[in-house]
Amino acid sequence: MTASSRRFIRSDWIIVGGSAVLVAAAGFTRFVGAGSTLAFVCAGLAVALLAALVGRSVEQLGDRFGAGATGVLQSALGNLPELFIALFALKAGLVLVVQAALIGSILANLLLVLGCAFTVGGALHGPQHIDSERARSTTVLMLLAVAAMVVPSLASYVHTPAAPHEDMLSLVVAIILLLLFVLTLPGSLQRKPAGDAAEQQEAPRWPLAIAAGMLIASALAAAIVSEWFVDALEPAMRTFGISDAFAGLVIVAIAGNAVEHAVGIQLAARNRSEYAFSVVINSPLQIALVLAPALVILSRLLGYAPFTLVFPAMLVVAVTIAVLIAAFITWDGESDWSEGAALLALYAIIATAFWWG
Amino acid sequence: MTASSRRFIRSDWIIVGGSAVLVAAAGFTRFVGAGSTLAFVCAGLAVALLAALVGRSVEQLGDRFGAGATGVLQSALGNLPELFIALFALKAGLVLVVQAALIGSILANLLLVLGCAFTVGGALHGPQHIDSERARSTTVLMLLAVAAMVVPSLASYVHTPAAPHEDMLSLVVAIILLLLFVLTLPGSLQRKPAGDAAEQQEAPRWPLAIAAGMLIASALAAAIVSEWFVDALEPAMRTFGISDAFAGLVIVAIAGNAVEHAVGIQLAARNRSEYAFSVVINSPLQIALVLAPALVILSRLLGYAPFTLVFPAMLVVAVTIAVLIAAFITWDGESDWSEGAALLALYAIIATAFWWG
Amino acid sequence: MTASSRRFIRSDWIIVGGSAVLVAAAGFTRFVGAGSTLAFVCAGLAVALLAALVGRSVEQLGDRFGAGATGVLQSALGNLPELFIALFALKAGLVLVVQAALIGSILANLLLVLGCAFTVGGALHGPQHIDSERARSTTVLMLLAVAAMVVPSLASYVHTPAAPHEDMLSLVVAIILLLLFVLTLPGSLQRKPAGDAAEQQEAPRWPLAIAAGMLIASALAAAIVSEWFVDALEPAMRTFGISDAFAGLVIVAIAGNAVEHAVGIQLAARNRSEYAFSVVINSPLQIALVLAPALVILSRLLGYAPFTLVFPAMLVVAVTIAVLIAAFITWDGESDWSEGAALLALYAIIATAFWWG
Repeated sequence: MTASSRRFIRSDWIIVGGSAVLVAAAGFTRFVGAGSTLAFVCAGLAVALLAALVGRSVEQLGDRFGAGATGVLQSALGNLPELFIALFALKAGLVLVVQAALIGSILANLLLVLGCAFTVGGALHGPQHIDSERARSTTVLMLLAVAAMVVPSLASYVHTPAAPHEDMLSLVVAIILLLLFVLTLPGSLQRKPAGDAAEQQEAPRWPLAIAAGMLIASALAAAIVSEWFVDALEPAMRTFGISDAFAGLVIVAIAGNAVEHAVGIQLAARNRSEYAFSVVINSPLQIALVLAPALVILSRLLGYAPFTLVFPAMLVVAVTIAVLIAAFITWDGESDWSEGAALLALYAIIATAFWWG
Repeated sequence: MTASSRRFIRSDWIIVGGSAVLVAAAGFTRFVGAGSTLAFVCAGLAVALLAALVGRSVEQLGDRFGAGATGVLQSALGNLPELFIALFALKAGLVLVVQAALIGSILANLLLVLGCAFTVGGALHGPQHIDSERARSTTVLMLLAVAAMVVPSLASYVHTPAAPHEDMLSLVVAIILLLLFVLTLPGSLQRKPAGDAAEQQEAPRWPLAIAAGMLIASALAAAIVSEWFVDALEPAMRTFGISDAFAGLVIVAIAGNAVEHAVGIQLAARNRSEYAFSVVINSPLQIALVLAPALVILSRLLGYAPFTLVFPAMLVVAVTIAVLIAAFITWDGESDWSEGAALLALYAIIATAFWWG
Repeated sequence: MTASSRRFIRSDWIIVGGSAVLVAAAGFTRFVGAGSTLAFVCAGLAVALLAALVGRSVEQLGDRFGAGATGVLQSALGNLPELFIALFALKAGLVLVVQAALIGSILANLLLVLGCAFTVGGALHGPQHIDSERARSTTVLMLLAVAAMVVPSLASYVHTPAAPHEDMLSLVVAIILLLLFVLTLPGSLQRKPAGDAAEQQEAPRWPLAIAAGMLIASALAAAIVSEWFVDALEPAMRTFGISDAFAGLVIVAIAGNAVEHAVGIQLAARNRSEYAFSVVINSPLQIALVLAPALVILSRLLGYAPFTLVFPAMLVVAVTIAVLIAAFITWDGESDWSEGAALLALYAIIATAFWWG
């Protein structure tokens, strides 16, 4: 085995190669058959694989600075593809799609991926334990961040005097949430990863220059392909008669998180439920703490359709149900496949309710 | 002691004999004094005792196939009397009564019965522990099932585009919930019962033919008397000036679950809090997973007033409070009589709010 | 050291002397510069210090009858200054201020004080453990009491038939809550205090006559100064353009609880997180069980603006978020400073939403 073969393992080649092929396919179908379903599918798959490539590059870059740094980099950059999609969608005026996609990412993690992970893990390995102090701590932070994120919505529904000031309130909340993210960064840096995550930790394989270059290249590609994806989204919605809310909540949310989802389920299949759970529960925290506030601020700086944290009420209802149930599951400490099936059922039911968007 | 005396213990004779007497009394008062309060009370008591007889027959029938089979049979048949009452009430167009009775059954279990059990158990035996893995697992499933059951209501209140499709959404949810019930049946079959429930397990006493015959006879009688009960309900409501919501939430819910309730409280009095708790927490799960979906589908098949899962908002509020508090109590792991008193206070307050129905 | 110096420790002298000075200052500024900001500030500080003096007197009086009696006396009398402020505010017709102050007290305890305690305690001593059976038991009671307290609001929003009867419903709820308080008193008397609270227990220092006299004097002074505080509140609100809701939720709530808050944070700084947590979580329980019901009944007896338990919806939203998050934190069992920072962020966000009141 040569040094180079140790530097790039098989999954690296698959992700890099697959990204290149799919970006090419997405570019080709876009210019040949713009507006076609095929162009949409190619762009969606390319975005998903580029998200994986960004994640892998961050991992390789961060690993040389320790587990904490990886976590921080992932918090800051891991949602980059989702951020690009959201910004292009805002540019196109698809505010509802973006709001639904944000909440949909949380739902997809807490109901769909957790449901799959429990079902697969439970079926293969029997009841799984998720009893770390850390999972509970992350869940409390997630509850707090999501609660803070939905306050402007709740104020807008029921607190008449605040309703005309929803823009200002969203901005204040965004700034406080970002501040909270920055303040808690040092804590995340010191925090040790969950038990079996530590074993998982490997030495960085990629040379620094390659890791950094790959991160920049994949981020750039993600930015470009995200625009293609958003461009192809509207024709696809019209073709299949899909509402804005459903498109955001289900399609964009799943495309933007596809690889994270695959990883979570894969970890559960390998009986690493503890780690799978911590990956899944961390994502909503980052969406509430980084992605949503960033969109509020960037949409104003870039002059796009102003993004506020006043979500349609049903999105708030859905996210409230999801975070509460996830919290009780964290405290339960044990999961079996019937809980997984029930999570999937709940996801299907909520998605159905949004079919009429 | 003869074989026959071992086959039928005293409580068997009381339930069988009591049922026969009360069914006769209910029949007599119905044809002599239809619409009278006495006819209503007799029918209510007969329904309650027949529910006990159905339960006992299921137990004797199931016990020869193991604890799992009993659980499954009880899930499927234990709510039979409630199902009959609900169907006749739907036939009579009393949709609100049925909706309130469904939610009222959940409230009665989680607040009234749990409150009585904690108060009685705590007063007699001091703080009680309810710390089984199984209780938490059942609670998570209950939360998921109840959340799924109320999604159509929530969509109808706040998600305008879905509101006109509430019939379709209710049907989809009903099918998914029934599917979930069927899928999780094998799991329930394998699941071992809670610690002291196992001790409780006895050999079946009734011969198979008698158990089966008794089940059929009691189910038939329950079907007939349920109709009498529903017929007598409306005049009784007018006599006492009781609203539809209160009648369903309190009177029908308590009549339909009277014996289950008595058993739960009795178990707590005998310091079997663990088992009492598992009985109490299991009932809402079955209502959400079997009874409510069955009513949605049967009301359509039978051409009755169509039953949807769009409940009046206050019922959803009440059930949300009840399941969340029950969940925190499960996770608490210890209960004393002051918690019991607080549960009873909350039940009284919610019932009062529905007095004006 | 003389007997007298042992009877009155330094903090006694500070509280007694400080109260005397501030009451004098509040009286002077009131008659010289009524309506001025200085009069408002002096009255606010005097109220806060008198609240501490009432608390200290109750402690010294109750300590000779055991820890249980202190608890009961504190439940009954500890909220006396808040009660006076609320009654004078109701007399002045400031119903919304009083409602906001009640909910604001709960929020201030569960978000602001807990947030400060976690941040300070976590920064000084690392992650803190709060894992007592008692904390969970108090939290369950708090959830039940707060749920009962908000039922009239929820009924008024979504249960049309009950809306015209909100006065009657509030009265029924108030009576049930007070009854629950009286019934659970014997239980609280027997209940042992939390681990490190027991160490804290000291012999009473003040002679009985002085303790009783100080309690009467401080309560009387609190009554008088509360009126001055309320009188000065309205001009101050106009001067600074503060809405009724914000004034009650933030200013009155913090002034009425300032010393409790200081104690909670101080305990956390001394690494007594267990005891700090039990102080903080007990306050909302007393507000829901004693203060709110007392206001409903007293406002009617005294012929003031009738106080009902129908709160503006945003207050119910805020208190729901706060109690649910506090409950999950109780069950978490461990707290660090990032949770503290998130609690403070949530408090700031909710307070901002009420700025437009």
